[in-house]
Amino acid sequence: FVFVFANALNAKEHPSLILTKEGVEKIRDNLGKVPLFDATVEKIKAEVDKEIALGIDTPIPKDFSGGYTHYRHKQNFVIAQQAGALYQILQDEKYAIYVRDMLLQYEAMYKDLPVHPQVRSYAPGKLFWQCLNDSNWLVFMSQAYDTIYDFLSSEEREKLENNLFRPFADYISLANPAFYNRIHNHSTWGNAAVGMIGLVMDDQALIQRALYGIQDDGLAVGGVDDDGGTIKSENQKRGFLANLEEPFSPDGYYTEGPYYQRYAMYPFLIFATAMQNKLPEYGVLQHKDNVLLKGIDALLNLTDADGDFFPLNDGQKGMSYFTPSLVTAVNIGYYYGNQNPELLSIAEKQNEVLLDQTGLAVAIGVQANMAEPYTKHSVNLSDGANGDEGGVAVLRSGQEDLTAVFKYAAQGLSHGHYDKLSFSLYRKGTEVLQDYGLVRFVNVGQKGGGNYLKENASWAKSTIAHNTLSQNQEMHFGGDYKTGSQHHSDLHFYADHDEKVQVASALETNAYPGTRMHRTIAFINANDFSEPFMLDIMKVSAKKAHDYDLPFYYFGQVIQTNFDYIKPSSLSPLGDKNGYQHLYLEATGKPSADTTQFSWLHEGKFYTLSTLTAPSDEILMTRIGANDPDFNLRSEPGVMLRRNNTQDTVFVTIVEPHGSYSPVTELSLNSNSAIKSLELLHDDKAYTAVRIEDVKGKTQLFVVSNLDAEKTREHTLTIGSKNYRWEGPYAYITAP
Amino acid sequence: FVFVFANALNAKEHPSLILTKEGVEKIRDNLGKVPLFDATVEKIKAEVDKEIALGIDTPIPKDFSGGYTHYRHKQNFVIAQQAGALYQILQDEKYAIYVRDMLLQYEAMYKDLPVHPQVRSYAPGKLFWQCLNDSNWLVFMSQAYDTIYDFLSSEEREKLENNLFRPFADYISLANPAFYNRIHNHSTWGNAAVGMIGLVMDDQALIQRALYGIQDDGLAVGGVDDDGGTIKSENQKRGFLANLEEPFSPDGYYTEGPYYQRYAMYPFLIFATAMQNKLPEYGVLQHKDNVLLKGIDALLNLTDADGDFFPLNDGQKGMSYFTPSLVTAVNIGYYYGNQNPELLSIAEKQNEVLLDQTGLAVAIGVQANMAEPYTKHSVNLSDGANGDEGGVAVLRSGQEDLTAVFKYAAQGLSHGHYDKLSFSLYRKGTEVLQDYGLVRFVNVGQKGGGNYLKENASWAKSTIAHNTLSQNQEMHFGGDYKTGSQHHSDLHFYADHDEKVQVASALETNAYPGTRMHRTIAFINANDFSEPFMLDIMKVSAKKAHDYDLPFYYFGQVIQTNFDYIKPSSLSPLGDKNGYQHLYLEATGKPSADTTQFSWLHEGKFYTLSTLTAPSDEILMTRIGANDPDFNLRSEPGVMLRRNNTQDTVFVTIVEPHGSYSPVTELSLNSNSAIKSLELLHDDKAYTAVRIEDVKGKTQLFVVSNLDAEKTREHTLTIGSKNYRWEGPYAYITAP
Ligand SMILES: [Ca+2]
Ligand SMILES: [Ca+2]
Ligand SMILES: [Ca+2]
Ligand SMILES: [Mg+2]
Ligand SMILES: [Mg+2]
Ligand SMILES: [Mg+2]
Ligand SMILES: [Mg+2]
Repeated sequence: FVFVFANALNAKEHPSLILTKEGVEKIRDNLGKVPLFDATVEKIKAEVDKEIALGIDTPIPKDFSGGYTHYRHKQNFVIAQQAGALYQILQDEKYAIYVRDMLLQYEAMYKDLPVHPQVRSYAPGKLFWQCLNDSNWLVFMSQAYDTIYDFLSSEEREKLENNLFRPFADYISLANPAFYNRIHNHSTWGNAAVGMIGLVMDDQALIQRALYGIQDDGLAVGGVDDDGGTIKSENQKRGFLANLEEPFSPDGYYTEGPYYQRYAMYPFLIFATAMQNKLPEYGVLQHKDNVLLKGIDALLNLTDADGDFFPLNDGQKGMSYFTPSLVTAVNIGYYYGNQNPELLSIAEKQNEVLLDQTGLAVAIGVQANMAEPYTKHSVNLSDGANGDEGGVAVLRSGQEDLTAVFKYAAQGLSHGHYDKLSFSLYRKGTEVLQDYGLVRFVNVGQKGGGNYLKENASWAKSTIAHNTLSQNQEMHFGGDYKTGSQHHSDLHFYADHDEKVQVASALETNAYPGTRMHRTIAFINANDFSEPFMLDIMKVSAKKAHDYDLPFYYFGQVIQTNFDYIKPSSLSPLGDKNGYQHLYLEATGKPSADTTQFSWLHEGKFYTLSTLTAPSDEILMTRIGANDPDFNLRSEPGVMLRRNNTQDTVFVTIVEPHGSYSPVTELSLNSNSAIKSLELLHDDKAYTAVRIEDVKGKTQLFVVSNLDAEKTREHTLTIGSKNYRWEGPYAYITAP
Repeated sequence: FVFVFANALNAKEHPSLILTKEGVEKIRDNLGKVPLFDATVEKIKAEVDKEIALGIDTPIPKDFSGGYTHYRHKQNFVIAQQAGALYQILQDEKYAIYVRDMLLQYEAMYKDLPVHPQVRSYAPGKLFWQCLNDSNWLVFMSQAYDTIYDFLSSEEREKLENNLFRPFADYISLANPAFYNRIHNHSTWGNAAVGMIGLVMDDQALIQRALYGIQDDGLAVGGVDDDGGTIKSENQKRGFLANLEEPFSPDGYYTEGPYYQRYAMYPFLIFATAMQNKLPEYGVLQHKDNVLLKGIDALLNLTDADGDFFPLNDGQKGMSYFTPSLVTAVNIGYYYGNQNPELLSIAEKQNEVLLDQTGLAVAIGVQANMAEPYTKHSVNLSDGANGDEGGVAVLRSGQEDLTAVFKYAAQGLSHGHYDKLSFSLYRKGTEVLQDYGLVRFVNVGQKGGGNYLKENASWAKSTIAHNTLSQNQEMHFGGDYKTGSQHHSDLHFYADHDEKVQVASALETNAYPGTRMHRTIAFINANDFSEPFMLDIMKVSAKKAHDYDLPFYYFGQVIQTNFDYIKPSSLSPLGDKNGYQHLYLEATGKPSADTTQFSWLHEGKFYTLSTLTAPSDEILMTRIGANDPDFNLRSEPGVMLRRNNTQDTVFVTIVEPHGSYSPVTELSLNSNSAIKSLELLHDDKAYTAVRIEDVKGKTQLFVVSNLDAEKTREHTLTIGSKNYRWEGPYAYITAP
């Protein structure tokens, strides 16, 4: 990375937190000359002017998320931050007056404000039902305050600082250590909030409290929050820097997953930037080998072709890099990083920049036609503070024509799912095999106040809700969060150097004690195939016999199967616990061949799943939605391979996109699978070899070395009368 | 209409059928100067060149639709027609040679070709499994032949005409009168095919056979085709002109509905155009007061904001004005119609024109920036040859922000559904309350050969599959096609002059003998509402008590209800026949208030259905998919109001889009209904009055005159202590 820093600023100067005096000057020099920046100013000006016309409202806090007072206070801090920036940029006092009057109204109210009446959180706020939202407020209002600091009289400043900001910062920290002193995105917001206002007020105590947490919080080890997340563990670190060190891996992967990373990136980046502007000697933005800047790239890589984040763990589908915190990330990443021109193309799509020097730099870059396409490649991201707690591999073929997201990570804190070695598959921006995501209608008040619904725990987190192996209809780690948090999967190897064959292989030995699961996912771009396909080998080694289920959650309409199935006239739940209670059994089939095939059509594309089956296997066709009394779940289908009473076994599956269908031309092209059969040609402790025969009679062989993953190791294997010799942990042999 | 005709041509000149000699000259003069035309030439040239490189294949017919030989022969006639046009335009003999060689191959094969081996049709073809596809072939190949006519030697022409074209024309007509002599889109294709080749060969007998059918077909009255459609009825007319007169209403609505109109428009327009070019004195294109040109407008008006046709009757969803036959319709409609500049904007979206003089004219218009947006308004289209057999009303609010399709038509021939007074609702291009469409995967061989599946009759055609009233769980007309074909619904009134209130009101008295159904659908753009809503009044007058079901097939997730419901742990079918066997009962609720409300979220928009309920009513929540052994149905939800053992009654419902939800901003705006309550303030034979109270306490009154629909009639009505006086069939009164 190459850093381009503004000079260290006079700490007493304002604004200097995010928008700097120097930045304001540059912006004013360029006003009317940089279209993307000007358009953003116009857009935000229109929004702010509309709010100013409506008048300031700071209602007595009453509502939960989804209700009016919640919405209003949230809208207030967003608009105040924007109004402050407009004041600096346009130097129109009406914006400063608006912010000042709003802050003074808050000051008048806050003095005597009790804890929020909706006491449902482990850490209730005052303006909002939880300290988390109060912290959001302070992160934004600190910026607003900084921009109008010089406009205020010293009496006004004193009033605001003594009656509003300092008590506010103390309430979310000293009064709520269980919220403030955790390793959790909640605490990151809290730390940043305290730090931001500390920087504006030049209050060293607050800045230290932000960076290093509350030294003596008086909390007992143990205790859980509303989501079941640990509040304090043994030897727990605390404060902003610890929150930066712990959840980010050296690759910039955030252990809670991209949905929460997106949320946490804002306080991480905004406080780190503020520190960079005011106290660069702390090196916060560079902390842990620039992990925050790496995190921006990691996050952008955890999106599909539309920019939607992969819904790992608790993630709401549809959240994407069009969210404001990603505008922040892209702008800060461009300015404080190495001015990667690929970031400019994302800024172009976002069609909005920050109203500060970083946004100006991006807008100037776009105007200069410096943007290059943000091209996503295959990537392997480690998890864990030291990068040694598994990870997430993303295999990509073509221009995101096919993308597999293979999760072999740690538990992912309280928002983690019991989904070891699960994967999801995308075609461009379309989900082919899904990760369900969360069960929550965020901010939709009618659905449980917009909070996590009980089916999040009973379905979304469950193992059977994921495209991975369930044993004896149980959840990984018995669904126990503490146990899950002590373990992680392990990478066996990752190889993306050959565009014909890309492979990620990982192991899980703790999810089901006594059972070793080894999954290898390969993208194979075979010569005679019209498109790349995915090969999935799940090798199970168990101390005794178990019942196994391996589901695949597809979308669309069943087109063809090569097995017979029976649909019952009534649908019943597949089980009574561990997520199974939420699946209706729509049909049960028995294999009629060694290679069982299942084809479906979704959004104009055909897909075929071909999987090796034993005669005693069953194929279950399922639909989500049973035992869902409030219609919280989406009614979506799945196909599941069931193999009962088996000890060691290998599941071999190919998922193959092919052909197309258009309802306009009504042409059905290439609607049949190109796979004729699969064969498990060899399987022992050391090697597993799969032979693939296509409909033209051509064959391919894929061999994985199960024990030795050394890149340069030489292997030899005799299968039948043939000897194979190769280097590295896998071999791909055409015409074997 | 203003007609701009080319001069009558020398009938012996070639090409003169569609592409004319004069047209070719103009096109050649403009080559390289008109981007849309040039781009189409390039695109089609690329396709044709690719096929020429592959070589000609005219395989022995073997496969059903979805199979290779079916695909190949279909592709052949499409490419041959295009290659012929390219030969004329580019004057490159390779295209003429390609067409010639292909035709000679067909000639060699056709001489001894038996009837197609897949005998599943009432009228099997030779190249294809049904005469219909053979007719498609001849319609296109006639054009191809015309374009290379002068390139061929007279010996070649003689060979082709004697051994291929004439026997081909005779086979689909004389040998298959049951196919050729009907009033049906099949026959239209047959008639056009015979007429097109007749025009090229200057064969008056064929031309007369095309226009007027086979005079003595020897068919007995009665007999049905594969879809249950009548083959010959009493006093049946025949031939192209009869097929034009019968199914088109004077407004240009085609009784089978837009999906089949789209299919039939091509032979209608292409043969009418050929007649216009070669024998304009017949006035075919102007026949029945220009009904073909009116039909183009009707068809474009039967699309949603994306250009998707409303799936009335058997219609495949996703078929749209991007289909090639609509390029033909738009180009011919522009050229031979009054050069409506709004058609140019559709041509721009289609991004393709015909390779003839009509396409050139459109491309020149586009280049001259003459295109204007195709703005769709509310429209009422009559059904029936004389426009007196009911119709279809399309109410539109804003720029297609809300569109209701209200069907009070005739049966619609063999592809008709038992869906009297049903409606569907759209928001822009998104279905809000759906018409299911058909159960068929057209050309997807794996799904029953791409043909109609049995669930088309058992589900898609059934009354309960539609958003209309079912009585005693029976289908309209007992599901009897002959009975249904004798009746139609009747318009009560239609009024779209007031953009605040638009109304369509219609009656059905035959579907359930002894029961009179009167449905009134109004779009109300109320002052205090953020968006227009739909009011639906279904007034039922019955000779005795019945059980009524009124379903609404929505999409998306349930957000809120104001009634309690119970979800059984297992799902069972709602009934055992008439479509009910295909519905799972997901939940049963009982009203807790007079105004029952049901809210859902779909694609970022909230919707609330508010409906007047009696305490004994039930609310059923359903899902499509029961008794569907081959997964042919889509699993989609519905909510149904059930009112049992009732004689006269009125169903009053409001469907109200409101607010928005974005998974990116996570803002949930205006997620609550603005409706507080509905009240049936008055109901007797003469008047039905509904009072709507909103959450702010404001009221509106909507009154419909049930008996007298005269536009200028003065009405007075006393409700309680108030007297209302208005003119016309409805009254809308704010603050009543
Ligand atoms: Ca997407
Ligand atoms: Ca008729
Ligand atoms: Ca649409
Ligand atoms: Mg998950
Ligand atoms: Mg997890
Ligand atoms: Mg229908
Ligand atoms: Mg019908």
